[in-house]
Amino acid sequence: MRDPARQAAYALRRGKVYDWMSGEGVALLMLEDAEGRRDSTVRWLTGQPGDALLFLSVARKALLVPWDINIAGIYAEADYIRSYGEFDRLPVKACRKAAAFLKIPHGSKLELSPLTPYPRFLTFIEALDNFDVLCREEGGAAAAMESLRAVKDEEEIRLYRRASAITNELTELIEKNLKAGKITTEIEAALFVDTECRKRGCEGTGFETLAAGPSRSFAIHAFPSYTGEGFGGKGFSILDFGVKYAGYITDVTMTVARDLSKPQERMLALTEKAYKLALSKVRPGTPAAEPAAAVDAFFARAGKTMPHALGHGIGLDAHEGPPLRNRGDNHWTLEPGMVITIEPGLYDPKLGGCRLENDVLVTGQGGEVLTASGLIRL
Amino acid sequence: MRDPARQAAYALRRGKVYDWMSGEGVALLMLEDAEGRRDSTVRWLTGQPGDALLFLSVARKALLVPWDINIAGIYAEADYIRSYGEFDRLPVKACRKAAAFLKIPHGSKLELSPLTPYPRFLTFIEALDNFDVLCREEGGAAAAMESLRAVKDEEEIRLYRRASAITNELTELIEKNLKAGKITTEIEAALFVDTECRKRGCEGTGFETLAAGPSRSFAIHAFPSYTGEGFGGKGFSILDFGVKYAGYITDVTMTVARDLSKPQERMLALTEKAYKLALSKVRPGTPAAEPAAAVDAFFARAGKTMPHALGHGIGLDAHEGPPLRNRGDNHWTLEPGMVITIEPGLYDPKLGGCRLENDVLVTGQGGEVLTASGLIRL
Repeated sequence: MRDPARQAAYALRRGKVYDWMSGEGVALLMLEDAEGRRDSTVRWLTGQPGDALLFLSVARKALLVPWDINIAGIYAEADYIRSYGEFDRLPVKACRKAAAFLKIPHGSKLELSPLTPYPRFLTFIEALDNFDVLCREEGGAAAAMESLRAVKDEEEIRLYRRASAITNELTELIEKNLKAGKITTEIEAALFVDTECRKRGCEGTGFETLAAGPSRSFAIHAFPSYTGEGFGGKGFSILDFGVKYAGYITDVTMTVARDLSKPQERMLALTEKAYKLALSKVRPGTPAAEPAAAVDAFFARAGKTMPHALGHGIGLDAHEGPPLRNRGDNHWTLEPGMVITIEPGLYDPKLGGCRLENDVLVTGQGGEVLTASGLIRL
Repeated sequence: MRDPARQAAYALRRGKVYDWMSGEGVALLMLEDAEGRRDSTVRWLTGQPGDALLFLSVARKALLVPWDINIAGIYAEADYIRSYGEFDRLPVKACRKAAAFLKIPHGSKLELSPLTPYPRFLTFIEALDNFDVLCREEGGAAAAMESLRAVKDEEEIRLYRRASAITNELTELIEKNLKAGKITTEIEAALFVDTECRKRGCEGTGFETLAAGPSRSFAIHAFPSYTGEGFGGKGFSILDFGVKYAGYITDVTMTVARDLSKPQERMLALTEKAYKLALSKVRPGTPAAEPAAAVDAFFARAGKTMPHALGHGIGLDAHEGPPLRNRGDNHWTLEPGMVITIEPGLYDPKLGGCRLENDVLVTGQGGEVLTASGLIRL
């Protein structure tokens, strides 16, 4: 719903994008949030929660073209909101009409999302032959907005604190219910999350909850994501979930341990040490690859390998910048305001898997752990 | 899990794609199923339920490169299954290596998905400069496979009958629970679907369930999709859901009516007539636009407008060919074996909305309604 603080935040964010457009000489920017090509930057800039085109002009005007004008009326903030019907319900035509409506001079630079498929790009350059049509990853608008989005503003951090508080209520209740024997299957664990987060005003879960009992915890991403199998029995169970509050997604993993064998205890002890090690490396100015490299080296010394990255930025998307990945092409640096996951884990086809994950706000000093999930011993 | 009938079906489907490749002179086809670029054709051809590259050679060999080799070991069928690590974890490099592995001669035609973003396409043509790289919508491999997928084979129809039977058990139970006062909120309705479909062996719901009580049924796609609001109270409530069984998605909408006003009764009566009219038009050989045009004309005569298409094909995706849309560019024809939804609806900001939807198998004679959802009066 319309909230003055949030509306002001959208205007400030658009201001940053306009500044970037001025600097780059881009006269018109088109964003599209559609099935198969989701782009939550539209929501970040206007509050519109889904399915819309967004046009930003270097003259600092925003035109939103939503599929559902009623939803936009409730949620969205833009200089102009026009129904998709007015723009012929075809993105290419809409773009041409929007350029005219926003008085973009012929010959100007017009930038499309780098998600634009190649055959579609061809139809754009044909229909917009009066413009210099750009579609780029490196140095483009999407990369610039990815960097901007990675550093959360005050309003976003406020929402993250609320989303984290709800997440923490849930992990506490799940622990209680596990100990009371009220959650004994994967379905029960996953649907408990779904029900309880919606009761607390969330839009839903942040992503498909993964609940994997001892028979399935060996997989990083169990398929199907939850079933009627037991949860919390002998060995490792993993519950990886998040909530979505006003669009912002949390992401935590609880490991539930019961009657572990010695090799399982060792896996867990290593994962706990890796988690602490990673947290100690979260500091502003640190390359985002560094905590990941430290954990990879730590596991390697123990003769183990983690088959996934250490973590990632979160926000309106479950995965955004910065990646906490130990790879040469990771050029991100941790900055105050970034919200990231730290999620070391170890997996074994026979022993099962364990993972510990929380969400961390990078501050001026180090990392503030926002969520409070962890190991539960039954 | 591996099922001989299903494995045979995958091989038959790949055979049809190889035949098309031969006819078109395409030596190598690359498909990618990844976050942000889902392509369930990979599953249709191999059984792999997610996250993989698939390479098909005109020499009739399939190379699957899954992210999770363990999941592929359980589900997938291909001539070669190699882990993504072996192919450097980068799609462009994987494509170059796959071309060498499958002995594709230099200069051959190599086709990419039309979902390939433009900047990514540029990196492919640079890295694959020994090949003639294609990426097209019209006349391309994806369009050919979309047509093939629209007509379900015997194995798929067998799975659809099972998915429909589960869906029908659910609608019956929902009706009972509504009448017994056991479902009174949107959350209860939506989570009942999720729990009960998984208990019956489904992978989950087919898409995010929409449960909109009287205060929210005016929207075609309520946002958020379900909340703590009441469901089944005075006026119209809508429950739009589907199950996903072995990948195949059903899609039905129940309208729940209580103490309707005269204008609401009229909306409902029109929607019921439109539903029957649409069904009577489902016949093999009929243009897919025709039932939609008939319904649009019927509503127009009553002074009403339906703000969405009449229906769409379903399968491994919630929306696939043929579209039942009244538009000049709809060139699809109904054929035996197609599975489509019929879902007329009317919406009013004050009166709320009603929609009736079932899934229909096009047969040699007409349409066989597979699901049994409908109006529930409380």
